[in-house]
Amino acid sequence: MSDRYVVIGGVAAGMSAASRIRKVDPKAEVIVLEKGDHISYSACSMPYYIARPESDVSELVVLSVADAKEKRGIDVRTHHEVTAIHPAQRTVSAVQHPSGREHAFRYDRLVIATGAAPRSMDYPGEELPHVVVLRNLDQGIDIKRRIDSGVKKAVLLGGGYIGLEMCESLRARGADVTLITHRSAPMAHLNSDIVKTIIETLDRNGVTRISGIPVERITETGVRLADRHVDAGLVLIGKGVRPNAAIAESAGIRLGAEGAIGVDSRMETSISGIFAAGDCAESLDRITDKKTFVPLGTVANKHGRVAGLNAAKETARFPGVINSAQLKLFEMELGHTGLTAEAAEDAGFDPVEIHITSSSGAHGYPDRYPIQVCMVGDRKSRRILGAQLIGQKGVAHRVNVLATAIFNGNTVDEFSMFDLAYAPPFAPVWDPVLVAAQVLEKKMGR
Amino acid sequence: MSDRYVVIGGVAAGMSAASRIRKVDPKAEVIVLEKGDHISYSACSMPYYIARPESDVSELVVLSVADAKEKRGIDVRTHHEVTAIHPAQRTVSAVQHPSGREHAFRYDRLVIATGAAPRSMDYPGEELPHVVVLRNLDQGIDIKRRIDSGVKKAVLLGGGYIGLEMCESLRARGADVTLITHRSAPMAHLNSDIVKTIIETLDRNGVTRISGIPVERITETGVRLADRHVDAGLVLIGKGVRPNAAIAESAGIRLGAEGAIGVDSRMETSISGIFAAGDCAESLDRITDKKTFVPLGTVANKHGRVAGLNAAKETARFPGVINSAQLKLFEMELGHTGLTAEAAEDAGFDPVEIHITSSSGAHGYPDRYPIQVCMVGDRKSRRILGAQLIGQKGVAHRVNVLATAIFNGNTVDEFSMFDLAYAPPFAPVWDPVLVAAQVLEKKMGR
Repeated sequence: MSDRYVVIGGVAAGMSAASRIRKVDPKAEVIVLEKGDHISYSACSMPYYIARPESDVSELVVLSVADAKEKRGIDVRTHHEVTAIHPAQRTVSAVQHPSGREHAFRYDRLVIATGAAPRSMDYPGEELPHVVVLRNLDQGIDIKRRIDSGVKKAVLLGGGYIGLEMCESLRARGADVTLITHRSAPMAHLNSDIVKTIIETLDRNGVTRISGIPVERITETGVRLADRHVDAGLVLIGKGVRPNAAIAESAGIRLGAEGAIGVDSRMETSISGIFAAGDCAESLDRITDKKTFVPLGTVANKHGRVAGLNAAKETARFPGVINSAQLKLFEMELGHTGLTAEAAEDAGFDPVEIHITSSSGAHGYPDRYPIQVCMVGDRKSRRILGAQLIGQKGVAHRVNVLATAIFNGNTVDEFSMFDLAYAPPFAPVWDPVLVAAQVLEKKMGR
Repeated sequence: MSDRYVVIGGVAAGMSAASRIRKVDPKAEVIVLEKGDHISYSACSMPYYIARPESDVSELVVLSVADAKEKRGIDVRTHHEVTAIHPAQRTVSAVQHPSGREHAFRYDRLVIATGAAPRSMDYPGEELPHVVVLRNLDQGIDIKRRIDSGVKKAVLLGGGYIGLEMCESLRARGADVTLITHRSAPMAHLNSDIVKTIIETLDRNGVTRISGIPVERITETGVRLADRHVDAGLVLIGKGVRPNAAIAESAGIRLGAEGAIGVDSRMETSISGIFAAGDCAESLDRITDKKTFVPLGTVANKHGRVAGLNAAKETARFPGVINSAQLKLFEMELGHTGLTAEAAEDAGFDPVEIHITSSSGAHGYPDRYPIQVCMVGDRKSRRILGAQLIGQKGVAHRVNVLATAIFNGNTVDEFSMFDLAYAPPFAPVWDPVLVAAQVLEKKMGR
């Protein structure tokens, strides 16, 4: 008899796992239980969908339910919300919406990919109708519809990635945008010179910033701060997410970092035959060698692939994360990877940090822009621990050069001599990342 | 008494070495003997200087002779051509131009950075006045002056980097451009799909291509091929370079790969106290573990740094090259690193090659372009051996992600799970280079 696999959740990690299982075990029965309408969409692209009046939600869908069924042979059940896992019986219980009918699904192996939910800040007024979060596709559709129908003033509460991307989207739609951050600045954990450039970019693009002033409550017409009221027809809360791990916990599965589902390097949970993947699951931080919670699409897809392979009895290992992320912010590109100096210190390293400004092009090439590189190394091991870059051109993929070096555990001395490709339109003859490494070498002493 | 260092050649490698020596040994006497007018200019930027009527040659100069002397304390002697090295006496002989006066310079340690010279193809007519090469700054100035004065038809003989960059420059100046290549296509050693895109790019931008037809001679009005005559007021020969190693050889220094000066990993030649750096010196190929000749600015600068440090009694090691290079070709970016499948086979590997087309942006992001990735791996060790990328956006630095992986000796299995930063404007959630690695993993079998 063929094996039966159940996957809870049909977005990034869930569909990655299901697709992998299907490829490895073509005879298996693969059931995906998704509580929403849609599967496999690009959640990260929602700000760009919202930014364009002419865009259609279908552009975000990577794989339709029909194609998943017909072309990939995956038995997708939308509107099925799993309410409990019964490891002893190897079943899950699900409620079908809107009928409310209950179903039980037997499994041989289970993948939990329940994702994460927006973190509430417990502001009074969060339940008001003009308060939104941007997490799933229905919320993206809702926000776009509100902008389409003429909302002209928006407040973003929280200065993380989504908040910053939404500043650009909403400005593109002609809205007045106020970005309210709890800390002294958006992305305040980054190097201060990089943060300064983020602030200048927001200012230059007409985003009003309010930082470090407590929010008292959300009102029917906007947001009440300790010292003022900001009018807004739309209040977007972007305060990060927490893992959806309740049904796993109820089933007796061990939770790990920040309440995410605990997994080994095969993405298997504390219960044999049950795997977890994506924003509900923890990851190993390769630099600190500690478990961490990194709810990003790139990680979710890799988790899903590894979980699916192992569920289908292949052997795959998730090698961990180094917190690589990037962002387009109006005309600027921002990227970072690894640890900040502060995080490195917290993790027990002896961090040395440098910041340089170099150029996106060679001496003599006319069309070039400044590139800032902040690099953090460990004085003792001389390993590169982290990097942050910002600039108008040539940042997004350069940060991945450093991510690759950090993933390999390269020392700053090794890295500074790497044979990187160069041409005048793209870099100075010493690439900014190599210059940064040389400056860091010098500051560390050699 | 302070040490006296003599550096022969004042461009990339020579000035890098001199600057390093000066930093490490502030009391030393550092003499740079340069046969030309200029030192420390960006030779690679010359096509972009030629492309713009309004550009001035001063834009190419990184460090003027006056600044080198006054700000860096380096005793630069231009118009000094070294004619012989006398290791037993620790002196070099130089002729000063135009006076013809001879000078001898005593040294404690010597760095040879004599560069490379264009390879002659022995075409009859190479001596004609409208035949040029682009190697040093005076030649760049000369070519620009010819274009400024109205040359309207140009032939490029040779389809290497400079030839392709000059296609773009000369088209930008409104010239009719014919690119004549000996092999079947420009960059014919690359993957055939990549080459096809190079050809399409040239065609789309109005470059006439003639490939695989023997050149008989250069005439007073153009170039005579076996089957036709191509009219041209300017004929640029770009057939690669050979190392300027004659004075080193005459001094009894061992020559190495392709006639370049043989060096150890400290860039020291076979004669103790004499170092070599840049386009005149060989490099270790990290992938094949054999000596090679890679006359590129990036390599020259690194050579110079290492040679300078070791000459000044520091300890530095040149870790080798992996043949990373990149190119802007009209609206396209082209990059490659490591070995092609053919070169891998020649080096004794069992190469597996894949080619994919992915995208510069995520599903749902509007402004995206195809990116092609060719990846070569070794079946036995599963190491990544090489990669080639082409596309309109996001290629130049992505190739350096792979260069960093290859420099580290990563297997395709390791690399395919690397934590690379992602945002919809810059990449799909699985970066094209990760997709390529997965496809290569599969083709290798696992």
